[in-house]
Parts: sequence; structure tokens; C-alpha cells
Amino acid sequence: MDDFEFRLVKRDKSSNARAGVIRTPHGEVNTPVFMPVGTQATVKTLSNEDLRDLGAEIILGNTYHLYLRPGHELVKRAGGLHRFMGWERPILTDSGGFQVFSLNSLTKTTEEGVRFQSHLDGSYHLFTPEKVIEIQQALGADIIMVLDEPVLYPCSQEQASRANKLTLNWAARCLQAHNELKHKESKQGQALFGIIQGGTYPELRETSAEALLKLDFPGYAIGGLSLGEPRTTTWEMVDLCIQYVPETKARYLMGVGTPEEMVEAISRGVDMFDCVLPTRNARNASLFTKFGKLIIKNSQYAEDFSPIDSECSCSTCRNYTRAYLRHLFNTGEVSALRLATIHSLHYYMDLMKTAREAILQDRFPDWKAEFSSRYQSKEKGEGND
Amino acid sequence: MDDFEFRLVKRDKSSNARAGVIRTPHGEVNTPVFMPVGTQATVKTLSNEDLRDLGAEIILGNTYHLYLRPGHELVKRAGGLHRFMGWERPILTDSGGFQVFSLNSLTKTTEEGVRFQSHLDGSYHLFTPEKVIEIQQALGADIIMVLDEPVLYPCSQEQASRANKLTLNWAARCLQAHNELKHKESKQGQALFGIIQGGTYPELRETSAEALLKLDFPGYAIGGLSLGEPRTTTWEMVDLCIQYVPETKARYLMGVGTPEEMVEAISRGVDMFDCVLPTRNARNASLFTKFGKLIIKNSQYAEDFSPIDSECSCSTCRNYTRAYLRHLFNTGEVSALRLATIHSLHYYMDLMKTAREAILQDRFPDWKAEFSSRYQSKEKGEGND
Repeated sequence: MDDFEFRLVKRDKSSNARAGVIRTPHGEVNTPVFMPVGTQATVKTLSNEDLRDLGAEIILGNTYHLYLRPGHELVKRAGGLHRFMGWERPILTDSGGFQVFSLNSLTKTTEEGVRFQSHLDGSYHLFTPEKVIEIQQALGADIIMVLDEPVLYPCSQEQASRANKLTLNWAARCLQAHNELKHKESKQGQALFGIIQGGTYPELRETSAEALLKLDFPGYAIGGLSLGEPRTTTWEMVDLCIQYVPETKARYLMGVGTPEEMVEAISRGVDMFDCVLPTRNARNASLFTKFGKLIIKNSQYAEDFSPIDSECSCSTCRNYTRAYLRHLFNTGEVSALRLATIHSLHYYMDLMKTAREAILQDRFPDWKAEFSSRYQSKEKGEGND
Repeated sequence: MDDFEFRLVKRDKSSNARAGVIRTPHGEVNTPVFMPVGTQATVKTLSNEDLRDLGAEIILGNTYHLYLRPGHELVKRAGGLHRFMGWERPILTDSGGFQVFSLNSLTKTTEEGVRFQSHLDGSYHLFTPEKVIEIQQALGADIIMVLDEPVLYPCSQEQASRANKLTLNWAARCLQAHNELKHKESKQGQALFGIIQGGTYPELRETSAEALLKLDFPGYAIGGLSLGEPRTTTWEMVDLCIQYVPETKARYLMGVGTPEEMVEAISRGVDMFDCVLPTRNARNASLFTKFGKLIIKNSQYAEDFSPIDSECSCSTCRNYTRAYLRHLFNTGEVSALRLATIHSLHYYMDLMKTAREAILQDRFPDWKAEFSSRYQSKEKGEGND
């Protein structure tokens, strides 16, 4: 028996939404799931205890950042990323490709791999498919990702096609390197996911999906979306990719997204999400609530002695008022960042939890309709926030 | 029966050290006690839950800062500082005098009070004895302080004498304003402490202590020390002041200090302390341990996978390694600030707790000797930290 398994628990009758369980060496993950982003071996402002209290079942680490600091070899000597950061539940690491391209204006991509300069000190580095597998095996996450070359939006079909070919070639090399290293180090635990690319070109998405499916990865990510393309195009591409991925495989929509996007993606059959929005926006005093966003620094909250959301059960809402949180932000207290992050991450986790319950209890369409009416109506009402 | 009471529980036989209990409207405080500094209605980086976990029985708020932001009237409308910040245990507020003088280069002191400019926006404000009592009653702390004019070190006897006279005059006016407002608002809860000043001049300290004792405050602070004067002078002044304060009154050494200073002060009969050192130093990656200070950013800790102090029971030491904490500081993660603060504050709280236990169990001299040998020997050994 493999250490990794995706088990489908329940299908929604009227949509592609589904509830499942991912089994990993560090425990099970209930899907749909949101993975808080822990770029530098920490989810910004939070402790592991905070994450456990929030019910986080899996977090994401960034290979690019961890490779540069503290270095994957150091993490390996610490006993792997779980031990290094003291997090006992599952972890997923990305391949570092996205950060290489998004944090560096000067990258050189060849068949071999991608050469880049560190955003920290300008030093030169080369990420090849084999190298990112080596790094990710050193980090020791439960789920690791292939190296891909993302394309921006808009992108010509020629460019997207070229990137797609390279990405497929790299995926095969990643898989081979992974299998060889797995064998060599007797590591059975890590699951390597493929990433379907192809920009906004249906035929390229199909080519990508078909080729990757032949490699039989245990899970598939959909990459390169939510980069500015029209919303209808996003869902067209998601639907197309998901058609190709068998029901028995986990599906991960990378970097998505807003609550509305995630709910829509769940209804289309996506199981896994990650995004910096809840954590990054919280640090900028912009909070997610079931009514839409709330800008806590606004003067209207100066003497508002009610919680962010009176129905929210997060520790911030149970213990603090809007006026107090606004005061902490206005006076530059870093505790504001953590209290806000706790609230918004709780909102994201709760969204996944209630979506799952709705699927399991055959009331997903009602749940989705209720979400949409509440979230959008209030967001319009607070449009000037 | 008054809401405030200091009860002497035990006297050490071979020193002036003592264990006591302070009763306040928001609960009891065991002494000796260290009061974490919560300048802007928050102990920097921590939540109230963190403070409770650390066993904090009382915290300090700064009148100057709270008066400027969010404003004492707003705090009053929130139901007082306890309600505003969600802290249910005792609070002490200072009078704001020290901040006025230390944060402003241009202050104008007259018999009436002290005129100053806000360090935030340059606006002009006047603190009179009556005004700081009004502000502190609006904030609603359990223990409040009289307005005083601190003197720097060194300071001429003439200047110190002039400040002393003004401070005594202001103390009487504070007491009168406090009694009048207490009566008017039917607030019986707050205890107003006097502050013995007089710089490093024994005769001025005596004058100050004698005059304040006549006003019969429920507790007495010793102010204006640990400002650069020789250590022997500090203790000479502390001993002198304490001689005057009856055993039945709480004694508070303001702004002190390092672990060594606090242990020494306890042995001389001090009950209460506050200081920014454990929290401020922690945010600068300098940690207090029973061996002395530890600079966690030092490269020697890069691969040190042991806790800050393997015998420490704080949540940071139970869950994280030196290498990980160093990584968080080096990558600028704000979670580092909180984890470090938790450790150093735990060290301070634990120092008070074990000192108290030692006094209660008649082994304070041994405890003090053990503290000194451990703390100093290792500090020397790590002198380059």
C-alpha cells in the first residue's frame, strides 16, 4: 500500500463538487481543503499552535525560499521540514518554478532548466527538474510538485506551446528523478503531483493533460490560471482539465483564490487550494468575512465595540472588538497582524469545512447559493471599503 | 473594606525580601511581581491569551500613549481599559509624566503642570495633576500613579530639590483630585500610589518619603532610579526609601530592570517591578535565559536544533529550536518577535515565581546565591554574544 492515497467519499448530485480524504505519511487531509501558505517555514505571524487551533490539516512551503534560506541541506540535517519547523501534519512544497519566474526579472530558461539570480543577494542558481526533486526530497514534504515553466496572461499560442512542451519534458524528468531517488533513499512517502499547463489555449491544455495522465501521477495540479484572464476563460480551462483527471486523483488549483473563486472551483470538482490572500490581506488590515471584505482601519470602526463578525467563532472575534483591532493597526502593533490573520484564515478554513459538510449532507447547491447571496450582497453594500 | 489591599504573607529571615498579595477589583496579585509593559493597550506581539498562559497577574498601561491614541474618552466609552483590550486581570497605569519628559525634547513645566507636544503630530497638550487623574480614572486601571517630574542623572541638588518640591505638591493635588472624582463617580476601586523621588540625594529622598507618607497612599513607588547612577547609589537610595515605607504598603521600583537588579531589589524589600527589557530585547533577538543573554541571530545557532533553554517550560522552548528561531529572525518573520517575547517574558515571570516560592519556603538566600552563580558565570562565558 502506498503512503499516499486520494479517496473519494462523496459526489454532489447536481455539480462536480466532491468530498474526499487524502492520506499522507503525516496524517489525513479532508477535502475540499485550503492550504495556508507557509513560504519561509512559517505561516506569517502564526505559530503551529495557532494553525492547529484553526484546524489547518496541511500547509504549503515554498521550495524557492527554503532553498535560499535556510537551505535545503540544513533543513535535511534538522530532520526535514516537519522537524525543522515543528509541524507534525502534512506539508506540500511547490517546485520553486513560479517564484523563480515571478521574483526574478532575469531568468534564462533552457532545455536543461532555469538559471536565475537570488532575490536576496544576486547569486546565480540553476533549477533543473532533477534539482528541484532533490531539494524537495531533502525538505521531505508529503506532497511535492514538478518543475514547470508558467506563462503569463496574455501569452501567444506559440509561446504557450513552447512552454508546454518544456513543461511536459520536465515533468517526465521530475518523475524519473523522483523514482530514482525514492528507490535510492528508500523513501516511499512523498507523492509527486503533475501540473497541467497550457495557458488559455484549450488544445494545449488537452495536450498537457493527456501527456501527464500517461505518467500516472497520484495527483494533478492545474497551473497558470487566475493570472488576469477573463473569469469565463478560467472556468473553461478548469472544466477542461478536470475532465481529463480521473475521479481517483486529487485535483489542486494552484494559487486560487478568493472565497468566490474557491466556491466556484469546488463546484467544478477541485479538491485543493492555496493562496496568500487571507494572510497577506489580513496583514494589510483587509479582512475576509462572510459579508465580503472589511477594512478594519476605516474610521467607521473607531468606536465599534462589536467583533469583526459576531457569528464568527475564531479567537479574535471571541476576544476582541473592531475598535480594538483598529487601534492596534493604527498604532503599528504587530499583534494586529496575527489577530487579523487568525480571523481571515479561520474564515477560509471554515468555508472549506462547511462546503465539505454540505457535500456530505447532499445540500451543496443550497450552501453555494446562500454563500453567494450573503457574500456578494454585503460586498456591494460596502463597495467603498 | 477597601477594594485595594496589600497583605504581607511572609518575611525572609536574613534579608528584607518578602512575599505578599495585592488585592484589586480585578483579582489578586502575588508578590514579588513583574508587570509586563503594555504601552498601547497591548503587550507588544502578544495576545491576552498568551499573557494568561504566561501567568501574568497584572500588566502596565501607559497613560501618555493611551491619552493620545485611542484617547481616554474613547477607552472610557468602551467601558474602560480592561474592556477595551479584553484583559480581565489587574492593570496599573503610570501617570504619563515619564513619557512626556522622555519622548519630548520641548516640555514646559510650571507649577500648574507640564505642557508638551505630542510625539505623533506635534499638537500641544497640558498634563496637570488633576488631568492625569481624570485620564487614569477614565482608563479605569486598578492601580494608578501620581504625576511627578522625574530628574535625569546626573542632576544638581538644586534642580533635584526644585523637582522634588513640585512633585510633592503635585502628589497632594493628585490625591485630592482622586478623592473628589472617586466620590463624584462613586468609584471606590482605584488605588493611587505615591512616587518617592529625590534623585541621588539622600536628604531629598527622605523629604520626599516623609511628605508622601503623611498623605497615606496605599502603595509607594520609588522613581528616578536605574537612570545611569552607580549601582551602589541605586541600592543606597532604595534602602533609604524602603526604610520609610511601612511594611503594610506595597513597594514598586519603577522601570527596573535586569534579572540581577530585580533579584537584588527583592532582597531589599521591593514587591513590584516593570520594565521593557524582556519584551524589547526579545524583539531585537536578545533573549534572557538563566545563563544570561543569548543572541539568537548568532551564526553559532544556525544548526543548533536544541531549544533556547532545554530546562525552560515556555511554549517556545517546548516547540521550537534555536536554529528555527534564528531562521525566523533572519528572514524577517514577525512570528519570531512573538516567540522570542514569550520566552523572555516567561523567564521574567518564572524568576518572580521562584523567588516568591523561595521566600515562602525559607530558602531565599540559597535561591539568590544559586541565581547569581548561574546567571553571571554563563554571562561571562558568552561575553561576546
